Amino acid sequence: MKSLKISEAVVKRLPIYLRFLNELSKKNVLTVSSQDLGQKLNLNPAQIRKDLAYFGEFGKKGIGYDVTYLIEKIRQILKLDRQIPVALVGSGNLGRALCNYNIYLRDQMKITAIFDSSPDKIGQVINNMSVLPMEHLADVIRDSSIRIGIITVPAPEAQNVANQFVKAGIEAILNFAPSILKVPEEIRVHHADFTAELQSLAYYLPE
Amino acid sequence: MKSLKISEAVVKRLPIYLRFLNELSKKNVLTVSSQDLGQKLNLNPAQIRKDLAYFGEFGKKGIGYDVTYLIEKIRQILKLDRQIPVALVGSGNLGRALCNYNIYLRDQMKITAIFDSSPDKIGQVINNMSVLPMEHLADVIRDSSIRIGIITVPAPEAQNVANQFVKAGIEAILNFAPSILKVPEEIRVHHADFTAELQSLAYYLPE
Repeated sequence: MKSLKISEAVVKRLPIYLRFLNELSKKNVLTVSSQDLGQKLNLNPAQIRKDLAYFGEFGKKGIGYDVTYLIEKIRQILKLDRQIPVALVGSGNLGRALCNYNIYLRDQMKITAIFDSSPDKIGQVINNMSVLPMEHLADVIRDSSIRIGIITVPAPEAQNVANQFVKAGIEAILNFAPSILKVPEEIRVHHADFTAELQSLAYYLPE
Repeated sequence: MKSLKISEAVVKRLPIYLRFLNELSKKNVLTVSSQDLGQKLNLNPAQIRKDLAYFGEFGKKGIGYDVTYLIEKIRQILKLDRQIPVALVGSGNLGRALCNYNIYLRDQMKITAIFDSSPDKIGQVINNMSVLPMEHLADVIRDSSIRIGIITVPAPEAQNVANQFVKAGIEAILNFAPSILKVPEEIRVHHADFTAELQSLAYYLPE
């Protein structure tokens, strides 16, 4: 399935579909059309049909998509059908906020360990997790089979954290620090870039 | 220029280019090739050339792009050459963290007002700004010519905040709550979606 080379834009829309489908499922809605999806998500229905067609023919003409089946398929595609523990480094305001998002991550992917280098942060409890010292990072990542690392430290410290993640065997990084990371090619890095989001929004302001 | 209908993906890459170009400028680097840009930003040089070509012919064969000129052009395109005050509602951990990003927003676009509905948050000082009560939202937005609103409240409260933003004349919203907002068509909404970012990252994990 990976050999299809699905574009990043498509992969990033799948979790959006998934969230809305989960909401429909909770309301016992059985089928949904690409028109409905498009209207709710502010996306073009043709785009949605194209996105979902990458993964096989799920929709039925005149009926739409089977909600339960589509949820299952997207979860499989995104690998959310398996356990994916996540580690976070940087227990400042942003790190704390993200740990509180755990409740929205209904799937098996959750932040399971928090680290900080500051002695006065270590031992604090966030969302039932104790903040751990950086010295434990490698051991915890190995012992808990953690595959994804989140960086919420200030920009000048981000590369150092990335290096430690890579050394500890992390396979993917979500970086919130506004800095460009140098990591080996096989490590996937996504930037959750608040300033870029805000700046790109300005483009759409009326004159 | 807007009539060109530049894709959202391109608009979202421009701030990334801008940040790196600003770094180069600080180091007194005068020109940069699309190869260099691509390598540093993990992007395809051809893609970068295509992106920048939307806005006119800036690059010179064999020399590359003039850093200062490109910064100026991207700032113009993104409208970062004018004052864009931003308001934020929700002074929890995430709201606080975002206010601290003000230092990275070197341009004229900054968070200039913070609001919260909780009496024990009102009056607290974050980054030299007092948290204001929601009752002042409309007046402050009008008096300070605020054009963009950021939502960092819990998901069930997000729609209510969006409604108040719209009523107060906000033109664009950056929504951090994992919920789909209903707003008039002319209001641009971007979702800064942490859970979606994390879930899309899982797709790229090796089997």
